Amino acid sequence: MGGDFGPRCIVPAIARSLSRLPQLDVILVGAEPALQSALAACPLPAERVSFRYTSEVILADDPPASVLRRKTDASMRVALELVRDGQAAGCLSAGNTGALMVLSRSILGTLPGVDRPAFMAALPVAGKACYLLDLGANVDCTADQLFTFAIMGSVAVSELAGMPAPRVGLLNIGTELHKGSQRVREVAERLHNCPQLNYVGSVEGDGLFRDQADVVVCDGFVGNVVLKASEGLADYLQEEMRRSLDQQPLMRWLAPLLRRVIAPVRERHDPALHNGASLLGLRGVVVKSHGAATERAFAAAIERACLISQAGLPQRIAERLAGSGL
Amino acid sequence: MGGDFGPRCIVPAIARSLSRLPQLDVILVGAEPALQSALAACPLPAERVSFRYTSEVILADDPPASVLRRKTDASMRVALELVRDGQAAGCLSAGNTGALMVLSRSILGTLPGVDRPAFMAALPVAGKACYLLDLGANVDCTADQLFTFAIMGSVAVSELAGMPAPRVGLLNIGTELHKGSQRVREVAERLHNCPQLNYVGSVEGDGLFRDQADVVVCDGFVGNVVLKASEGLADYLQEEMRRSLDQQPLMRWLAPLLRRVIAPVRERHDPALHNGASLLGLRGVVVKSHGAATERAFAAAIERACLISQAGLPQRIAERLAGSGL
Repeated sequence: MGGDFGPRCIVPAIARSLSRLPQLDVILVGAEPALQSALAACPLPAERVSFRYTSEVILADDPPASVLRRKTDASMRVALELVRDGQAAGCLSAGNTGALMVLSRSILGTLPGVDRPAFMAALPVAGKACYLLDLGANVDCTADQLFTFAIMGSVAVSELAGMPAPRVGLLNIGTELHKGSQRVREVAERLHNCPQLNYVGSVEGDGLFRDQADVVVCDGFVGNVVLKASEGLADYLQEEMRRSLDQQPLMRWLAPLLRRVIAPVRERHDPALHNGASLLGLRGVVVKSHGAATERAFAAAIERACLISQAGLPQRIAERLAGSGL
Repeated sequence: MGGDFGPRCIVPAIARSLSRLPQLDVILVGAEPALQSALAACPLPAERVSFRYTSEVILADDPPASVLRRKTDASMRVALELVRDGQAAGCLSAGNTGALMVLSRSILGTLPGVDRPAFMAALPVAGKACYLLDLGANVDCTADQLFTFAIMGSVAVSELAGMPAPRVGLLNIGTELHKGSQRVREVAERLHNCPQLNYVGSVEGDGLFRDQADVVVCDGFVGNVVLKASEGLADYLQEEMRRSLDQQPLMRWLAPLLRRVIAPVRERHDPALHNGASLLGLRGVVVKSHGAATERAFAAAIERACLISQAGLPQRIAERLAGSGL
């Protein structure tokens, strides 16, 4: 049980989710002392919670390859084995992302036609949510892989957001046909000719926030940088507003009123509400929480994992991939 | 003379810059009818302005390669030839970016040791400006090219922002040494071992807005997407604030006061103030304005071109590259 705050944040998040989701049961996987001390501070209903104690910990800077060979009793590995063996409907982790990716592939395996899984999450945008994949599982992607991501993303948004034909875009540096790398132009042509997708063409960086598509595909390097840059800029602008208010002493009396205007915006864009990136393309449900997730954010990720599992997303993706001839 | 609005936006911008920069003289290069009609609406001081009329136009969707072979009397080409022949201190264009890149390389040539030029601009962040390069001149970059961008960016920010040793970062998807593609890890090692640079290591997407570096290096695909995503998100959040205010009728009377708080933030982050991407690595000064630049934004780009030319930036970069053994 990883992440920056470990069980003392995760256990209260579970308590919150158990009270909201009557169908949820939880298996806690981790080191006994840390789990028991978090449970002493925040008890959970015994009939809905079980435990698997583990002896090893995967650290944030453990290289993924070495995690594969060693640390056979790490909580992340054991949790994935529970999914593989049908004892858990999905695995949620706030730990080392690279390790989660490598262990998921090795323990659960990928769906037929999937070479590499991809992380997908919604950008923290309200009203016009835009899902982006990949978010960092793959630093370099082939045209084949990007094409598979488009199919997987389309199925996922269709199931999770209830859209029959989500608009699929390809992240690019221009909307003209000759723009982008050779690889991007190649995948653009394949997407354009795929009757199963509602492909809307290239989407530029600003288009992510202009309601131009419901799912946007890119390689994991670009996706990760864009997602984090968006978080950084949103934080920074909020801080600037606060500073501007402080610099105008006559306006300070307005602060409580101003907060009433800003609060709904902040609430709608709270990254915590969007926490939980789905690792798509596996033979099982795997969701990654932000390492620094708060209690509220971790609860959002639990609910996302439940939703994905109830939708039977891996099966839905497998069906669509089989139909696309991949 | 290109861009979305052409001379009728550019000529008033020139009038504004001429009144602010006494050392500035301007050569207008473009189609006579469009230029004369813009000048009729906004006269310029005759002693500081000269003309070169051209007969061809490079369109936004002209493939750069075909521009090289055809359109020998396009304004962009003629303006670059004026720089090459020493008749102009720099070229500023709001036209087709790919064409500007290809024509600049062909007409001006690159500095010794420079394989590909790179676009650099400041992210629209106030107080803690962060310069990013490349912004789209090169969709795929080798480790050698990224290393050269770091040297060029460091010299440029040193000269333009008056910093003796700007902090140089490498855009990446993690700060651990094993993160990123093979190419990114390779350039990270070279930057780490370069005594001429104040290299601060990997910077993640959010770090661009957290004052972690003064110059950040990435390939043109990533840089372009991040820059445009930042513009899109900032616009979107501003729109959300307006909507939140509208949805609370009792708060609407606050709007004028609220504007006094928001206006300084908007002013400090106005993308117009940051308009003008420098194309670094050429044997001459080339600046690209946003195609949709307003009068104010185009004037900012004129002033940037003057600053770069006065700093003798191409010479400064050539000296540093010679010293780095490239």
